[in-house]
Amino acid sequence: MKHFVGIDLGGTELKIGIIDERGTILYKDAFKTDVSQSGPRMVEYMAQCARTVTERAGLALKDLTGIGIGSPGLLDPEKGQLKIVVNIPTLNDVYVAPEISRILGVPVYLDNDVNAMALGEMYYGAAKGYRDVICLTLGTGVGGGLIFEGALYRGASFTAGEIGHLSIDPDGLYCPCGNYGCLERYVGRDGIVTRAKSYLSKGMKSTIGDHLDNGEITPRAISKAAEAGDALAIEVLAETGKILGIAMASLTNVLNPQVFVIGGGIANAGDLILEPARRELKKRAYTIPAQAVQVLQAKLRNDAGIVGSASLAVSRS
Amino acid sequence: MKHFVGIDLGGTELKIGIIDERGTILYKDAFKTDVSQSGPRMVEYMAQCARTVTERAGLALKDLTGIGIGSPGLLDPEKGQLKIVVNIPTLNDVYVAPEISRILGVPVYLDNDVNAMALGEMYYGAAKGYRDVICLTLGTGVGGGLIFEGALYRGASFTAGEIGHLSIDPDGLYCPCGNYGCLERYVGRDGIVTRAKSYLSKGMKSTIGDHLDNGEITPRAISKAAEAGDALAIEVLAETGKILGIAMASLTNVLNPQVFVIGGGIANAGDLILEPARRELKKRAYTIPAQAVQVLQAKLRNDAGIVGSASLAVSRS
Repeated sequence: MKHFVGIDLGGTELKIGIIDERGTILYKDAFKTDVSQSGPRMVEYMAQCARTVTERAGLALKDLTGIGIGSPGLLDPEKGQLKIVVNIPTLNDVYVAPEISRILGVPVYLDNDVNAMALGEMYYGAAKGYRDVICLTLGTGVGGGLIFEGALYRGASFTAGEIGHLSIDPDGLYCPCGNYGCLERYVGRDGIVTRAKSYLSKGMKSTIGDHLDNGEITPRAISKAAEAGDALAIEVLAETGKILGIAMASLTNVLNPQVFVIGGGIANAGDLILEPARRELKKRAYTIPAQAVQVLQAKLRNDAGIVGSASLAVSRS
Repeated sequence: MKHFVGIDLGGTELKIGIIDERGTILYKDAFKTDVSQSGPRMVEYMAQCARTVTERAGLALKDLTGIGIGSPGLLDPEKGQLKIVVNIPTLNDVYVAPEISRILGVPVYLDNDVNAMALGEMYYGAAKGYRDVICLTLGTGVGGGLIFEGALYRGASFTAGEIGHLSIDPDGLYCPCGNYGCLERYVGRDGIVTRAKSYLSKGMKSTIGDHLDNGEITPRAISKAAEAGDALAIEVLAETGKILGIAMASLTNVLNPQVFVIGGGIANAGDLILEPARRELKKRAYTIPAQAVQVLQAKLRNDAGIVGSASLAVSRS
C-alpha cells in the first residue's frame, strides 16, 4: 500500500494528514503557524510537522510515496515555488516543495488549494470515476479547479480556474478585481449576506435573527434558518443557487464537463442551493451538454484540504 | 515529407486540399455536393474526390499519412460518425471516417470544423508555437475551439467550445438556444447588423449605404464603410469588439489561455474589432492572465477549412 502526506497550508494553521492509496486518512493533526517566522524556519517547521504526522501514523519517511502541499495565493506548481501567500508573507517566493523534499528525501508537489481539492474529489470524493471535472468552492471567495481528461488544467500562468471572476453581467456589481458582475460578488459570502440583509431591511419576516453567528448574519446563519423552514432564508439560498446555475450553464456550453463538484462552507446548505442551481443550468444550457453533466455536492468536507493536498502526490505516483 | 488531405464538408460544396507537413497546400479544389444523394453514395463521392485531389497533386493514396474531415453539426470524433448535419441530412448517423478509410485504405479522422480550424491555426497559423489556444469564429454564428496543452479538448459529449453560448447577461437578448444574453446574439452576424440598423433608424449619418451587399447591410458592408472612415460603422465594430472583450475577459480568468485566435468572415475587419476587444479584455481580466494572453487575428483565412481539416490527421501522425 502506498502512502501520501497532505499539507493544507493556512494562515493560522497547517493541517497535515497521511492517507493510503484508497484515500483513507491514517492520521491527521493541525499545527499552529507562526507567521512571524522567517521563510527558511517555516519550511523547516513544515517538514518537521510532516515527519511528526508520519511517525504518529506508525510509518517512516521511506514509506511515503510523496507529499502534496495545497496553498492559497499565487504559486508556480512546476517549480514548487510559492509566489504570493497573503497570510504568510515570509513564504513569498520560497521554493517550498523542493526545499521540503531536500530535507525529508521524499518527492513534494505544490499546487493551489482548489486544484488540490478538485483532484481529491476526483480520486476519493464526489467526482470518483469522472475525468472532466469542474470544482467550485463557495466561501468568502469563489474558487475553481479544472480537471480535463483526468489531469489538472492550470493554464498559461497557472491561474486557470478563477470561476469566481467569470462575469455574469457586464454592468453588474463592481468587483475589486476591476471587472463588473463577477460571479463571486453574487454567490460569495458577502453577496449572500448582503442579499439577506437587503430583504430584512425591507421589513420582510424571517427567523434568521434566531441563528446568528456571534451576533452576525452569516451564510451559516442563513442556512440554519433555511433548514428550519424560514421562507426568506430559503429564498436567499435559492437565488444564490440560481445565479450559480447561470454561470454553470455558460461553463457547461463552453467546457461540456461531466460533473460540477460544489464545495466550501456555503455548499453545506446542499440542495437548498444545488437544486435551484441544477434547474437554472438545465433551463439555460444546451440540451446535450446539460444532459451530460451532474451537479454534486463535494464529499470530502473538512478533510478536503488534507486529502486534496495528498492527492497532488497521488496524481504523480 | 508526409502528406495529408483535408476535406471541408459544406452544404453546397466539398473543399478538398492536400498539404505537406509544413502546411503548404500542394493542390486544392472544390466539388459540388448533391444533397439528394444517399448517404453511401455521398461517402463514395467524398472518397472519390479525395482520390482525385491526391492524383492531381501528383501523388498516390499510399503517399498519404492521413485524411481529416471537418464538418459542421453534431458528430462523434472517436467513432468518426456524423450525427446531425443540418445541410446534408442524408449523412446523419453515417460513419463517414471509417467508411472512407475502408474505401481508400488511409486513416481518416473526423471532427467539427471549428476544432479543425483551431488545430490548423496552432500548427500553421496565428497560434504557431502556442499550446493553450482558444479559437473563436465570428460569422452567422459564433463558434469556438479549445486546445489545452497542445491537444483539442472536446468535453464529455464532444460539444465543448460553444463560446457563442456563453451568456454575458442573464437578462439579455433571448437566444433560440433557450438562454439569454448569449455572446452570439451580440457579436454574430445578426447582432452586428441589427446594431447598425438601429443607429441608422435614428437618423445617424453614415456611408454604410454606399457599400451594401446586394442591397443588404451586412458585416462586410459595415467593415467596408469603417475602412473608408465612416464613424458610425467604426463605432458598430468597436462595440462588437468590446462585447467580445467582455466574454474573453471571463474566459481569460477561467481558462488562462496563451492566445485567442479570432477567425471567420467578420474577423476580417481586423483591428477595428480586435483593438477594442483587447482593451476591454485588459480592463476586465485579472492582471496576470491578461498579461499572459494574446488576441490575434486568424491567419489561414480562406484555407482555414482545408488546412484545419488536414490538421486533424496531422495531430494523429
